[in-house]
Amino acid sequence: MQTHDSPDRGSDNSHLQVNDSRIDFYPTRSSAKRDHLGRMAWKERSVPTVWADEDSRFSPPTGFDVSGHSKRGYTIQPGLLTPAEVQKYWSELNRLIARSSDTDDPRVIREPGSGDVRSIFDVHKTSADIAALAVDPRVLETARFLLGSEVYLHQSRINFMPGFAGSGFYWHSDFETWHAEDGLPSPRAVSLSIALTDNYAFNGGLMVVPGSHRYFIPGQGNTPDNNVETSLVRQEVGTPAQDDVTELTAELGIDQFTGAAGAGLWFDSNIMHGSGNNITPYPRSNIFLVFNSVANAPQEPFESTSRRPEHIAATEVDPLRR
Amino acid sequence: MQTHDSPDRGSDNSHLQVNDSRIDFYPTRSSAKRDHLGRMAWKERSVPTVWADEDSRFSPPTGFDVSGHSKRGYTIQPGLLTPAEVQKYWSELNRLIARSSDTDDPRVIREPGSGDVRSIFDVHKTSADIAALAVDPRVLETARFLLGSEVYLHQSRINFMPGFAGSGFYWHSDFETWHAEDGLPSPRAVSLSIALTDNYAFNGGLMVVPGSHRYFIPGQGNTPDNNVETSLVRQEVGTPAQDDVTELTAELGIDQFTGAAGAGLWFDSNIMHGSGNNITPYPRSNIFLVFNSVANAPQEPFESTSRRPEHIAATEVDPLRR
Repeated sequence: MQTHDSPDRGSDNSHLQVNDSRIDFYPTRSSAKRDHLGRMAWKERSVPTVWADEDSRFSPPTGFDVSGHSKRGYTIQPGLLTPAEVQKYWSELNRLIARSSDTDDPRVIREPGSGDVRSIFDVHKTSADIAALAVDPRVLETARFLLGSEVYLHQSRINFMPGFAGSGFYWHSDFETWHAEDGLPSPRAVSLSIALTDNYAFNGGLMVVPGSHRYFIPGQGNTPDNNVETSLVRQEVGTPAQDDVTELTAELGIDQFTGAAGAGLWFDSNIMHGSGNNITPYPRSNIFLVFNSVANAPQEPFESTSRRPEHIAATEVDPLRR
Repeated sequence: MQTHDSPDRGSDNSHLQVNDSRIDFYPTRSSAKRDHLGRMAWKERSVPTVWADEDSRFSPPTGFDVSGHSKRGYTIQPGLLTPAEVQKYWSELNRLIARSSDTDDPRVIREPGSGDVRSIFDVHKTSADIAALAVDPRVLETARFLLGSEVYLHQSRINFMPGFAGSGFYWHSDFETWHAEDGLPSPRAVSLSIALTDNYAFNGGLMVVPGSHRYFIPGQGNTPDNNVETSLVRQEVGTPAQDDVTELTAELGIDQFTGAAGAGLWFDSNIMHGSGNNITPYPRSNIFLVFNSVANAPQEPFESTSRRPEHIAATEVDPLRR
C-alpha cells in the first residue's frame, strides 16, 4: 500500500518530527516547531488534495471542477439533494432531534446556555436514511474519487443551529484535531456538508479560507485531559494564532458557503474554516459526513493522552459498500 | 408649527394611549398594547419617511432614490466619502481611540471582556473633522431633505468593531429607545453610518429589515433605573419579541449593508436592524450621525424615570449651520 508520505508523493522531509518513535509530519500544539520569534511554523502540504489520478478506477462526478477543488480546497454542488430529498432529510433531522430532546446520550451535543440540541453524532448508525445517503453513488463515488481509495466514515453528524441565539465556531482546521486527538496521520480525508436549510450570508453560514488547505497551521495550546467534553461546544485548544489567521486571510481571502437547501459542500479536512453567530430567525441545519481513506487509518493520537470516543472518531476502518 | 401627528398627516388615532397627560403615539414596554393572546400590538406608521415634499425648499442629492428610500427605509450611497477622506477620518478615528484608551470618560464604551474601545460618543464636539462632516453639504442637505426641516444632532459616535472578537447587536429599532428613554415624540429622525472599513457580508455588518420602518414594534420589558449603563453594550430592554422578528423577516426579508469604505448608509430611525458577531480578522469601523428634526424636539422620556446623559441624547435643539 502506498502511503501519503512516501517519497514519490514529493513529501518534504525538512519539517519532520519524531514522536513516540513515529514520524509526525504535522507537528502541532506541544510539538509545534517555532521560529526565532516564537511563532509556530507553518508547513506546506506535500500530499495531494485530489488523490485519484488519470489511471484511477475512480472517476469524478459530471461537472465536478477537479482542478478548482485542488486549488481552493472546496467545491459546492448546488442541488446535490432534490427538493423532495431535502424534505425527507429535514423530517428525519427533526425526528432525531425530538427523540434526543430529553436524553443524556453523549452523542447529543447541546448549546451552552439554552441546552437546545446543537449536534447529534454517529447518525449513520442510528438513521437508516443517513446510512443510505453515505453510500448513495452521488456521495460515495465522489468521496472515493477525491481520496483515491476506498473510504469509511470517520465521523457523521447532523447540526442544528437555531435562529436568534446560535453561537458560531472559531477558526480551525478539522485535520488539526483529527491528527492531534484522533491519530489520523495525513489530511487524506474530506468532509461533505449538505444544507437542509437555505444558507444566507447572515445566518451563521460556514466561512472558509480558500486555498488554506495547502498549509498546515499548528494549533495553539496543549491538549488537556478530556478535552472532548468542552471542545465540541467551543473549541479553544488547537485553534490557530490570530496572527496566522490574519496572514492567511490577507493572502487568500474568505469565501462563504451560501445557497439553497440541498447544496453539498465538499471541503478538505485541512481547510481553515469557522462560522459567525446567528441572530436571524432563520435556523441553519445540515448533515455532515467525514470520509477518511482506508489508507489513512487512525493511529494513536499525536497530541493527546486519551482517545476521543468511537462516536466522534471511528477507529474501526470499515470500507463503505453500496 | 405642524406636528407629525396632526390630522392632515393622516395619523391613526385608534392606538392612542395617554401617558402623563401627553398623547403617546408609540406605546412600548410597560405601555404596549396587547391583544387577547398577550402579544404586543404593532402600530402602522402614520407619518412620512421622507418629509420634504415637492414645494419644499430642500432638494434631494443627485441620484438619490427618494421613493426607494420611503419604501425600504434606507439608502446606500457608495463613495459618499472619497478614498482620501476615508483615510483622513480613519486616522482621526484612531487618534480618538488612542486618546481614549486609558480613560474612564463616560463617552467611551468598551467591549465586554476585553475592555477594548467599542464606541466613542459625542465626537462632533471633540473632533473638528467630524463637526465639519456633519455640516458638509453632502450630509447636511440630505438630512434636511429627508426630515423636511432644519435638523440637529441627537447623537454622534464612532464605532470600532475589532476583528476576531467583535460582538454584535441584537435586533432593535433605534426610535423605540429614543422614544422610550430620550422622549423623541415621533420617528422624524434619520441616521447616517459612514463606513471607514470595507463591509463584507461576514464581518459583523449591519443587517436591516427593509420596510420595517413602516411598523412600530413595541419593545419588551420595563426600563430599569440606569438602563444606559448596560444597554449600550448589550441591549436587553426594548428589544422586539422573537415572534415579531420572525413575522417581520418572513414578510420583508433581510438586507445587509456591504460595500467599500466610504459608503454612506442613511437609515430611518424606526427601521429594525441588528448585527452578528465578527470572528474574521477584518475590523469594522464607522462614523455614526443621528439627525433629528427641530420639529421633533425631545420631551420627557415616555418610558423611563430618568433621562440619558446629554452625550448620548442631546436635549439642546441647536440647528446645524454651515
